[in-house]
Amino acid sequence: MQNTTFRFFKEQIARLAGGYKLDVPACPIKLNQNENPYDWPATLKQAVFERVREQDWNRYPPFVPAAFTEKVARYLGADPAQVLVGNGSNELLYAVFVATLEPGRKVLIPQPTFTLYKLLAEILGADVITGGLDDNLQYDPAQLEKLARDAHVVVITSPNNPTGGVINPMDLEHLVQTTHALWVVDEAYFEFHGETALELTRTCPNLVVLRTFSKAFATAGLRFGCMVCHPNALAMFATAKLPYNLNIFTMAAVEVAIEHAVTLKGRLEEIKRERERVARLLKAARGVRVYPSRSNFLLFETDRDPRALWQAMVGRGVLVRDVSGYPRLGRALRVSIGRPEENDAFLKALEFAITEVPPGGKP
Amino acid sequence: MQNTTFRFFKEQIARLAGGYKLDVPACPIKLNQNENPYDWPATLKQAVFERVREQDWNRYPPFVPAAFTEKVARYLGADPAQVLVGNGSNELLYAVFVATLEPGRKVLIPQPTFTLYKLLAEILGADVITGGLDDNLQYDPAQLEKLARDAHVVVITSPNNPTGGVINPMDLEHLVQTTHALWVVDEAYFEFHGETALELTRTCPNLVVLRTFSKAFATAGLRFGCMVCHPNALAMFATAKLPYNLNIFTMAAVEVAIEHAVTLKGRLEEIKRERERVARLLKAARGVRVYPSRSNFLLFETDRDPRALWQAMVGRGVLVRDVSGYPRLGRALRVSIGRPEENDAFLKALEFAITEVPPGGKP
Repeated sequence: MQNTTFRFFKEQIARLAGGYKLDVPACPIKLNQNENPYDWPATLKQAVFERVREQDWNRYPPFVPAAFTEKVARYLGADPAQVLVGNGSNELLYAVFVATLEPGRKVLIPQPTFTLYKLLAEILGADVITGGLDDNLQYDPAQLEKLARDAHVVVITSPNNPTGGVINPMDLEHLVQTTHALWVVDEAYFEFHGETALELTRTCPNLVVLRTFSKAFATAGLRFGCMVCHPNALAMFATAKLPYNLNIFTMAAVEVAIEHAVTLKGRLEEIKRERERVARLLKAARGVRVYPSRSNFLLFETDRDPRALWQAMVGRGVLVRDVSGYPRLGRALRVSIGRPEENDAFLKALEFAITEVPPGGKP
Repeated sequence: MQNTTFRFFKEQIARLAGGYKLDVPACPIKLNQNENPYDWPATLKQAVFERVREQDWNRYPPFVPAAFTEKVARYLGADPAQVLVGNGSNELLYAVFVATLEPGRKVLIPQPTFTLYKLLAEILGADVITGGLDDNLQYDPAQLEKLARDAHVVVITSPNNPTGGVINPMDLEHLVQTTHALWVVDEAYFEFHGETALELTRTCPNLVVLRTFSKAFATAGLRFGCMVCHPNALAMFATAKLPYNLNIFTMAAVEVAIEHAVTLKGRLEEIKRERERVARLLKAARGVRVYPSRSNFLLFETDRDPRALWQAMVGRGVLVRDVSGYPRLGRALRVSIGRPEENDAFLKALEFAITEVPPGGKP
């Protein structure tokens, strides 16, 4: 594709095209995207409609949504001068990368992790360094410290997706304070874990914390995320973010979500209990290895071909995520924690699949 | 701000921070953002709510919104394999720039035009070339052809904002077909003009057409835009765009908007008639020069200090856009065409302001 016709594309674009794909066959039980399994109650949806109905749809949202950002900041426990809001935390991550990465610069992205980080960094022409996770796929502070010396930016996901591992807060504090790199800490799964680097953003100019409403908040369909950084860094990150990025619907829905956070996040404890129950049962299964998780999903490996297992489970109506194409995860699948009956269906489908798919196979 | 503390930012970020700002005092008559002055009817808002109510807010939108994109493509008269959708055409422009611009590459952006193009190009490290408009601020094809030889990308806005000028379709076709640059044609104001480069995208791989629902469609609050390109180029542009970028609200609202396009765009003829009426009355005013416009706004110059005029009109409750900081527009203001009574209020406020502000002043 990269030929004289398309010589206006950057060199790496043709190589990266189609680099992040998702195979989503229709399945009654959907445990592939780490969504909260409980939809919003009808009354809360109606509350959003009432709020949006009164607004002028023909008018632009505010250039800088100050009142809205203040509500988000108050909810997060941050100063409004530290907060940017976006259509999913992806949009803010992209802005952070655009503000910091260019050809010739290095970004450290410990692997395996969320695919999009590496893709976006490479689109921007940066050199991606991997490493920083130990043999059990847990963050290794000594390795991170060494590798971070060469990097302009480091991306840490805690809890990490798809491994479920977390970074120790004391280790992170030391790393942020003793290096010059920008540390981007994606806390998409924060609510299932409970530990955050957010407080550090008040004093550390080289730290960004990303949050999303897509997971614990049961709001994936709305695509809302936010970031917290040092107040002196905000204007510079904001420069790489488009103005008017949030529409009036998203803002109304997020306001309602914050006002009713207790309701929307009411199932968190159940989800965490279910995670432990599913992990226990998986561990008891023959030939299955489960990674410890502080999130709403579990990473597990078997001695079967993961793609064949995945397909067999799809055949039973259960959709999990095939992550066997990720670095170091040649044997792995990831399952989101759903409602108890969904988790039971997953366990049954896996049991069935393991009997159906013979041991061995690639890799 | 750019010091060792923030050495992870790219060099140009500190310089560009705060580069696109908007001064929006609260005014009863708002003619500063080229919005359609008529809000959606309550019945259509309700239709959107009914559609969104039935959906799972806790679930992600489709990875690639194929059914939605098909509806948009059918409305545009394009093939679905040519269309990408985004949160405003800004998001898609940003993706196009990321896919094509990097340090050392040149982009031609004739000035004056929409401020954001230059800002985004410079954030990405590209060198911005200006030029391509004649003494009357109209597109000059010979100049464009010459300047485009050096550029990887050329941005044409037709009708142009804030001048109101358009590019001749035959000239554009010649330029696209005889140069290797990518031509990005922003048709945000297409519906007020009627001529489009969209058909050319079927055969020209080096052309992108941007459209928005923010102007004629009275949907600025929803932030929806789309782009059309050659099918062979789509995957590469898509690589630089985030997945799941549109939320379920936006898609439901745009579907309703397309189904009720006749209603939502029902005032276009009135707006165009009003544009001609306001232009006529402005021309008749002492010392006012009006630029020809094929859009829903008018650019005009006076012999008064434009900032003082703007301020005097704000004092009368009428908010127009002070564009006197744009290149070559030291004497200019821009007024959006509103409802007839709003346009009358603008004309009165301007008359008042001209008597209040003495001739001369800067520049």
